[in-house]
Amino acid sequence: MHKVDLNCDMGESFGAYKMGNDEEILNYVSSANIACGFHAGDPSTMRNTVKLAIDKGVGIGVHPGFNDLSGFGRRNIDLTPREVYDLVVYQIGALSGFASSEGGSLQHVKPHGALYNMASISRQISEAIAEAVYNVDSRLILFGLAGSELIKAGEKLGLKTASEVFSDRTYQDNGTLTSRRDRRALIEDHETAVAQVIRMVKDGEVTSLSGKNLSIKADTICIHGDGPHALQFAKYISDALQHAGISIKKASMVLA
Amino acid sequence: MHKVDLNCDMGESFGAYKMGNDEEILNYVSSANIACGFHAGDPSTMRNTVKLAIDKGVGIGVHPGFNDLSGFGRRNIDLTPREVYDLVVYQIGALSGFASSEGGSLQHVKPHGALYNMASISRQISEAIAEAVYNVDSRLILFGLAGSELIKAGEKLGLKTASEVFSDRTYQDNGTLTSRRDRRALIEDHETAVAQVIRMVKDGEVTSLSGKNLSIKADTICIHGDGPHALQFAKYISDALQHAGISIKKASMVLA
Amino acid sequence: MHKVDLNCDMGESFGAYKMGNDEEILNYVSSANIACGFHAGDPSTMRNTVKLAIDKGVGIGVHPGFNDLSGFGRRNIDLTPREVYDLVVYQIGALSGFASSEGGSLQHVKPHGALYNMASISRQISEAIAEAVYNVDSRLILFGLAGSELIKAGEKLGLKTASEVFSDRTYQDNGTLTSRRDRRALIEDHETAVAQVIRMVKDGEVTSLSGKNLSIKADTICIHGDGPHALQFAKYISDALQHAGISIKKASMVLA
Amino acid sequence: MHKVDLNCDMGESFGAYKMGNDEEILNYVSSANIACGFHAGDPSTMRNTVKLAIDKGVGIGVHPGFNDLSGFGRRNIDLTPREVYDLVVYQIGALSGFASSEGGSLQHVKPHGALYNMASISRQISEAIAEAVYNVDSRLILFGLAGSELIKAGEKLGLKTASEVFSDRTYQDNGTLTSRRDRRALIEDHETAVAQVIRMVKDGEVTSLSGKNLSIKADTICIHGDGPHALQFAKYISDALQHAGISIKKASMVLA
Repeated sequence: MHKVDLNCDMGESFGAYKMGNDEEILNYVSSANIACGFHAGDPSTMRNTVKLAIDKGVGIGVHPGFNDLSGFGRRNIDLTPREVYDLVVYQIGALSGFASSEGGSLQHVKPHGALYNMASISRQISEAIAEAVYNVDSRLILFGLAGSELIKAGEKLGLKTASEVFSDRTYQDNGTLTSRRDRRALIEDHETAVAQVIRMVKDGEVTSLSGKNLSIKADTICIHGDGPHALQFAKYISDALQHAGISIKKASMVLA
Repeated sequence: MHKVDLNCDMGESFGAYKMGNDEEILNYVSSANIACGFHAGDPSTMRNTVKLAIDKGVGIGVHPGFNDLSGFGRRNIDLTPREVYDLVVYQIGALSGFASSEGGSLQHVKPHGALYNMASISRQISEAIAEAVYNVDSRLILFGLAGSELIKAGEKLGLKTASEVFSDRTYQDNGTLTSRRDRRALIEDHETAVAQVIRMVKDGEVTSLSGKNLSIKADTICIHGDGPHALQFAKYISDALQHAGISIKKASMVLA
Repeated sequence: MHKVDLNCDMGESFGAYKMGNDEEILNYVSSANIACGFHAGDPSTMRNTVKLAIDKGVGIGVHPGFNDLSGFGRRNIDLTPREVYDLVVYQIGALSGFASSEGGSLQHVKPHGALYNMASISRQISEAIAEAVYNVDSRLILFGLAGSELIKAGEKLGLKTASEVFSDRTYQDNGTLTSRRDRRALIEDHETAVAQVIRMVKDGEVTSLSGKNLSIKADTICIHGDGPHALQFAKYISDALQHAGISIKKASMVLA
Repeated sequence: MHKVDLNCDMGESFGAYKMGNDEEILNYVSSANIACGFHAGDPSTMRNTVKLAIDKGVGIGVHPGFNDLSGFGRRNIDLTPREVYDLVVYQIGALSGFASSEGGSLQHVKPHGALYNMASISRQISEAIAEAVYNVDSRLILFGLAGSELIKAGEKLGLKTASEVFSDRTYQDNGTLTSRRDRRALIEDHETAVAQVIRMVKDGEVTSLSGKNLSIKADTICIHGDGPHALQFAKYISDALQHAGISIKKASMVLA
């Protein structure tokens, strides 16, 4: 029986500003990446989101990002590896406070936005993140782009890692995602998107833009929680995966 | 044998801005109240300060404050009790990340500045703080002004509490501190200050400004880490207490 | 011919967070209170909003608030009058940068949220705000609650002031607004709300909750830009005022 | 008679955090680059610094930086040119508020830290900054590294520009500063440093590290206001320039 984790960013509201349909999306995903007050989220939103995730049986993940609310953590910021280490430790800790106070526990850590992208290609940044995770709690699962430096850094330290794939992005011959600057970066057709992930999960393969067959590890699939069709797509991919005989389980069970 | 804890605010630097003589003050105190990035402090400063405290065998305390760096947490902000609860959970969590990553553990929680003052007289704010501490980790010690609402709220929940006294402040007949707006609020003479705390620790008594004898519980003494004479006074009070047969022990040992 | 200004808060989006229907609301109002990056807004939003206001011929107003994005400027913060003065000067300046760069000019200043409420009853806070406005540009119009300390402080300095009334709030015998803690604070029926402002504009009178007739000056009417029915109500009140023979003009023309 | 401007960063304190010796340094410099609350500074510090500059007859400059207090504006952040434009307009405006309220006027704009460095080599960033300055007030002088993209962008728009040189940095053959990663980047000997700037001002020449003679334009010299010897060096360079027959004048007079 095939199984895969479905993860989504959550808890991105801030004060009077609302974002996402967390409560509904949580019905379809198995892991939640919860913002920790740096690029999005605030203490009250974190508590609410952790509580919702516990209620729905969804894996609680730390989603550390740059301290850049106005840029939503999507801008590269030139931090030293030591500064990255410190901000990851801080954000894991902050979310763990709510996991404890609500009677739950943390499952994983997935860097957000620009930090995720920088980590994918930088060994130094990846090692800083992996060490932060390891030093706070070595049982946490590190999520990273399949085949990336982040996955390698986690494995090197002996962390459990979850290789992440994207349903709605195309791949290059070297296994990286096609840059969003390329108009072919996004797969907008839902059927094609879902067919791609089903093949990645079942066969461990994906076809690059140029037509090359690549091996890929797919422990967890990233879906997006904002945008007008987020909820509809979450339901669609969830149904399609199960119809294809793939069960959706939280990362800790996929890796078990 | 009498014993008392000596606590001091620490880790108040922020980025390029330096504050305090943490490394040296840590030689004289037994508990450190470490800022958590809201009113002061940043992730790198938190890590450094936790590491220093562990190296010196000093109790590690969370020092949660309002999210008001420009006001250094000293301005009253009209938060709901629920918002106070959330910011305390968050900040305990954040510091616990560094305690874990550096191989130490948290000893206590002491609210900072305006939050401390508001809690002293507000049952609602105090209950929010005490519940936050209790829900994250019920073994943590709650520091509060001796006789205050915060101590009562902690005791009501079954938390261990440390009653805090001030060497350099005068007291009113009802056991509260004389307001800083009164020119008699501060005890500037070191000998008088130290004599006051020795009597509080040994006899459980203090004389109010009007000359009345009050009962007071003195588990921990607050000293200040900034100002030109901070280090000198820390050494002075430490020596004087020991000379008076009072041993300086971290709060967890004072309460044991 | 009667005339009145219709003002609305604008430019409250922040980074990835969207708020309000500025572009559409601007079709119905004559003055815009533009957030300046402290309680809401960011530099890009400020530029866009100033540009929109110029395009629509709407008066450009500074909407200074507390530096409290997570509380949306709605929490009382215990600043000194000097700190209030400084934050008002700063925010007037910041918006004036965009007014200049877009080829427009500032019309007015209206404090936001908790600052507005605190100013309404505090002479010291009101004087600080009025002095800030006067010292940066003595031609700016100061908006304040009709009959409030803020209006008095502005008049004392010789500033032009616009007395603000609310269509959807009930009044007390002393001319203040009924507290939102009282369930009778809001007028939810659109017809009653509009009837109240028409009478305020035409007759300079309003009936208090207890039934007393009060004199009131109505230079500008506050309407709200968020909420599901904001746009619909903006259109409704605009039509009703004009139908009653009251023309909607920006504050500088109402006071001329 | 030769003349040159001497500029220094000022107003970098923030809340309870103090930085620099502004009041004393202002006795030796002719232009002040005043932080605007993004990378350093706060509204009260801005007012105080503007007032000091007016009292001492020193040119008032806007010192816009990235919104990165914890990094002191020294970290590269990947903003779009439009975002850079907006943050420069905002910060010019904010400081102009205090210039107006204190009865002074702005003289110049000099980007800070990482923004200065990015602008030196990026035409797009430089054009965004120059347009922001031009659109807010086309009479302002734009400060930039001599020979840099920023100076070119300013000239292209018809702004007055002040070419900046460094006394304590060595130069490469192409006129750029030697990177701080190179141990030969800094000139630590005061005599050599001063001799370099005197030659730049009088002869328009500097010798690169490799021994090549370069033409260089020196309208303004940057000195540093922090560090233990800042005040002493300010006095030293000021005396030495005057002794060499070079008078120290604010940029508006140097360019006149």
